[in-house]
Amino acid sequence: MSEKNILSSNPWRSDGSLRHLLTLEGLSRPLLETLLERSAHYSAPLSVPAARSNALIGKTVALMFAEPSTRTRVSFELAARRLGADVINIEVQLSSRLKGESVLDTVATLESMHVDAFVLRDSDASIPEMVAKHVAPSVSVISGGAGSLSHPTQGLLDALTVRQHRGRIEGLTIAIVGDVKHSRVARSAAQIFTALGAGEVRLVAPVGLMPDEAEFAGCSRFTNLDRGISDCDVVMMLRIQKERMTAAAIPDEARYFQEWGLTRERLQRAKPGALVMHPQPMNRGVEIASDVADGPQSVIRDQVRNGVAVRMAVLETLLAGR
Amino acid sequence: MSEKNILSSNPWRSDGSLRHLLTLEGLSRPLLETLLERSAHYSAPLSVPAARSNALIGKTVALMFAEPSTRTRVSFELAARRLGADVINIEVQLSSRLKGESVLDTVATLESMHVDAFVLRDSDASIPEMVAKHVAPSVSVISGGAGSLSHPTQGLLDALTVRQHRGRIEGLTIAIVGDVKHSRVARSAAQIFTALGAGEVRLVAPVGLMPDEAEFAGCSRFTNLDRGISDCDVVMMLRIQKERMTAAAIPDEARYFQEWGLTRERLQRAKPGALVMHPQPMNRGVEIASDVADGPQSVIRDQVRNGVAVRMAVLETLLAGR
Amino acid sequence: MSEKNILSSNPWRSDGSLRHLLTLEGLSRPLLETLLERSAHYSAPLSVPAARSNALIGKTVALMFAEPSTRTRVSFELAARRLGADVINIEVQLSSRLKGESVLDTVATLESMHVDAFVLRDSDASIPEMVAKHVAPSVSVISGGAGSLSHPTQGLLDALTVRQHRGRIEGLTIAIVGDVKHSRVARSAAQIFTALGAGEVRLVAPVGLMPDEAEFAGCSRFTNLDRGISDCDVVMMLRIQKERMTAAAIPDEARYFQEWGLTRERLQRAKPGALVMHPQPMNRGVEIASDVADGPQSVIRDQVRNGVAVRMAVLETLLAGR
Repeated sequence: MSEKNILSSNPWRSDGSLRHLLTLEGLSRPLLETLLERSAHYSAPLSVPAARSNALIGKTVALMFAEPSTRTRVSFELAARRLGADVINIEVQLSSRLKGESVLDTVATLESMHVDAFVLRDSDASIPEMVAKHVAPSVSVISGGAGSLSHPTQGLLDALTVRQHRGRIEGLTIAIVGDVKHSRVARSAAQIFTALGAGEVRLVAPVGLMPDEAEFAGCSRFTNLDRGISDCDVVMMLRIQKERMTAAAIPDEARYFQEWGLTRERLQRAKPGALVMHPQPMNRGVEIASDVADGPQSVIRDQVRNGVAVRMAVLETLLAGR
Repeated sequence: MSEKNILSSNPWRSDGSLRHLLTLEGLSRPLLETLLERSAHYSAPLSVPAARSNALIGKTVALMFAEPSTRTRVSFELAARRLGADVINIEVQLSSRLKGESVLDTVATLESMHVDAFVLRDSDASIPEMVAKHVAPSVSVISGGAGSLSHPTQGLLDALTVRQHRGRIEGLTIAIVGDVKHSRVARSAAQIFTALGAGEVRLVAPVGLMPDEAEFAGCSRFTNLDRGISDCDVVMMLRIQKERMTAAAIPDEARYFQEWGLTRERLQRAKPGALVMHPQPMNRGVEIASDVADGPQSVIRDQVRNGVAVRMAVLETLLAGR
Repeated sequence: MSEKNILSSNPWRSDGSLRHLLTLEGLSRPLLETLLERSAHYSAPLSVPAARSNALIGKTVALMFAEPSTRTRVSFELAARRLGADVINIEVQLSSRLKGESVLDTVATLESMHVDAFVLRDSDASIPEMVAKHVAPSVSVISGGAGSLSHPTQGLLDALTVRQHRGRIEGLTIAIVGDVKHSRVARSAAQIFTALGAGEVRLVAPVGLMPDEAEFAGCSRFTNLDRGISDCDVVMMLRIQKERMTAAAIPDEARYFQEWGLTRERLQRAKPGALVMHPQPMNRGVEIASDVADGPQSVIRDQVRNGVAVRMAVLETLLAGR
C-alpha cells in the first residue's frame, strides 16, 4: 500500500497491520472504517454498564502526558483498564526535561520493563514520532495529542459521533470553527472527514487564525461565521485561547463571542438539527453560548463517551494478540 | 419519609434507597444501623487479610480531592479497589480552578466516561451538593469532607469504633473536645451519636472555638476541659490548627496543651477505661499527649481501620447492583 | 544464624524467614542465591510477555518515595501489580514533612488500612530502618534506596544481570567506577558481589570521591580509570552529579569525561567482551560515551528488565503466603 511510506516512522508491521497511531494522515478509508466499527462495538450508552473486555490482560500501557490533560489521560486510562491492561502514569516534561537522547533513555527503560504501548502527549509535535522510531518492534506508540499537528483519537471520536447521529459522513457539510491555525483537533478532524467522503469540510476562522494555504488541502475557507456555518450538517467549535485573540486582532472575550461565538440565533443558519460539537474544555460565553453547549443539537457529551470507546478500539487493534 | 426532603439535592432514589452520601443529617436511625452493620462486616482485624468482595466489579469510582488528604483519599481508594472497582484519581482545585459551570463540565465529562461515583472533598462545602444536583440519575456522589460542614464517612467510622468497643451508642456520654466551631468531624459525629441515642453529647471548647448556639441542637457545652470530660465514656479530641488559636485567645501551642491538651492525668476524670479518639492527623503535645495517643484507652488506629470498612459499606450500598 | 543480629531492626521472622529488606549487608550466600533463583524465574526476555503470578492477590503494597525516582518506583509498581497486589502511591517528603513521630503516624495509619508492605525511598538513610522497627509483625518494609547507604534491590539486579551473562559471580573481577563515595548503588553492589565470591571488587574513583578506608572491606582501590578497569570482567559505571565534581577537583563535565568517562578505547583495557553496566539515569558524554552505553558489551537494558524480576522475587519472598 502506498500509505505505508507516508510516515517516516513507518507505523506498519510486516504483516500489514497497524503498529503505531501517530496521525490519521494517510490511513486508508477501509482501515478507518474498521477502527470506527470496533469503536462502535465499545460505545455503550450511559444507561448500561461500561463496555469491558479481557483483550489486553497481561499488557502494560504507559501514559506519558507532558501537557496537562485530565480529560484525554483519564479517557486512555479507563480504556486500557477496561480492556484488562495495567496502566502506568508517568508525569513528565517530555520536551524540556527529556530532550534528545534522554527522552529515549526513559522510554527505553520503560520498554525494558515490558511496557507494551506508550501513549504520549507533548507540545513538541515531533516527540511521538521520534519515540516510535526507536522503540522495539513489539512496542506500539499512540499519540495523545502532538502540538498543533495531530490528535488522531480525537479525530476518530469526532467521526464516530457524527456517524452515530447521521449514519454516515459521506456527503455531509462540516464546518470547523475558530482557531483552526493552532488546532490539532481541526487537523485530525479535517483528515478523517475528508478520508470518509464528507461533501465539504469548511474552515471558518478569523484571518489571523486561518492556517496557511498549503495546509488542509481540499477544505473551503470562510472568514465570517454566519456564512461559514450556513447550511452545514455539523458545526464543530474549537477552543480559543485568550492569548491567541491578539493574533486575530480581537481585543477581548466579549468581542470574540460577539463575532465568533456560536449562539442559538446563529445556529439557525446551519441545517435544521445540525450537530454541535466541541473537543472541550469549553469557554462558555466565549466560543460557545451555554444554552447551545447544553442544547438539543449538542453532541458534546457523546464525543466524550465515544473517546473511551475509540481508545479501547485503538489499543485493542494495536496490541491484542501480539 | 420526612427525611427525604431535608436535603435540597434529594439523595434518595425513587425506590427509597440511598443515592448520595453528602451528610449524616436527616438519615434515619435504621438506615444508619444498616450502614454500620455492613461496615462491621468489612471490618477485619489486622491479624487477618483485608476484607474483599467483587460487589463493584465493572464500576468506576472517581476521587476528586481538592484539599490535601492522603489519609481519606487512600482509605476511599483501597475501599473501592477491594470491592473490585476501577479507581481514577483526579487532582483538582475544585473551588478555585473549577468554579461554577466548569466544575460541572469536568464532572459531566467524567460521567460521560461511565464514572459511577464521585468522591469529592473541597474546602467549599457546597461543592458536593452542587455536583449531586447535576449528575445523571445513575451516578452517586459521596462527600469526602465538605468544608467545616460535614464528613459523613468519618462520623460513621467514629460510631462504628465506639460500638465495637462499647457494644452500643445508646446512653453513652461523649465529649467532643477542641476546635468544635471549625470541625466537620465534630458536626458529623454529633449528628450520628445523637441519632443513635447517645445519652449526652458534649461540646468542650474554648469560648472562641465554640460553635453558634443555633448549631449542634441538643448538645451540652463546656468551656473547661476538666469539667467537660468528667465521667465521659468517650473523649473525642479534635485537631487544632495553629492559626485558630488566636481566635481562642491562646498565644501558642505550649499554652494550648496546658489548657486543652489531653494528658493521662486529665483523662482520669473520664470514666475508667473511657475511649480516646482522634480523627488524625494528630498534633502530639498540642491537643493530645503522646502517651495518651498510644495508650491503652486509645482507639485511634481502630478508627483508621474502620475507615476503609465504612467506605466499602457506603460504596457497596450506593452502587452495587445498579 | 549470626546474621540475625546484624541489623538492630532485626529483619527476620521467628521461623527464620526474611521479613524486611533494608540492606544486603549480612545476608547469607544461600539466601542471596535463593533470591536470585527466584528472580531468574521472573526474568522474561522482552520477546515474550512479562511474567505474572497470583502470589500477592489480596495484598496491598504502599510505595512511599520521597526522592524523585520514576525508574525504581515504576519498577516496584509493575512488580507488585504483576503479582496481583494492589498498589498505593503515597507522594511524601518523608524526611522533611514527616520527621520523627509523624512519619510513624503516617505509616501506622496505612498499616491500619491493611497495607502489607511499605517500599520506602528517602535521602535520609535511617528512615526505612526506623519504620521497620515500628510496624506490626505482619508488615514488611523494603528499601527502595536509602541515602548513600544502600539500595538492596539494585544490588540484586546487578548480580542477576552478571550471572545471566557470565553464569557465575565467583572469581570475577568487577570494577565499580566513579562517585563511589556517595553511591548506595556501589555499596550494595560491593556487598553482594563479595558475598557471592567475586575474585576482586575494585573501587575506581577520583581521590575526592573515594570512600573512607573503614568502608568497603576487602575491596581494592584505584584512583586511575585505565588501571582500574584493566582486565576486568565487569565495568560498572556510576552516575556523577555535577555538584560532586568540585569535591573531586574536576572543573566541568568535559574534563570529567576526559579523565573518568568510559569510552570505546578505554574499554579495551578490560577483558574482551567485559560487561558494561550503569544503574541509570546516565549522563551520556559525562561518565559514559553514548556508543558504549548502546554498544554490544552494554547490559544496561538487561539491568532494568531484571529490576522488575528482582522486585517480584523480593515481594513474593517477603509477603506470599503470610
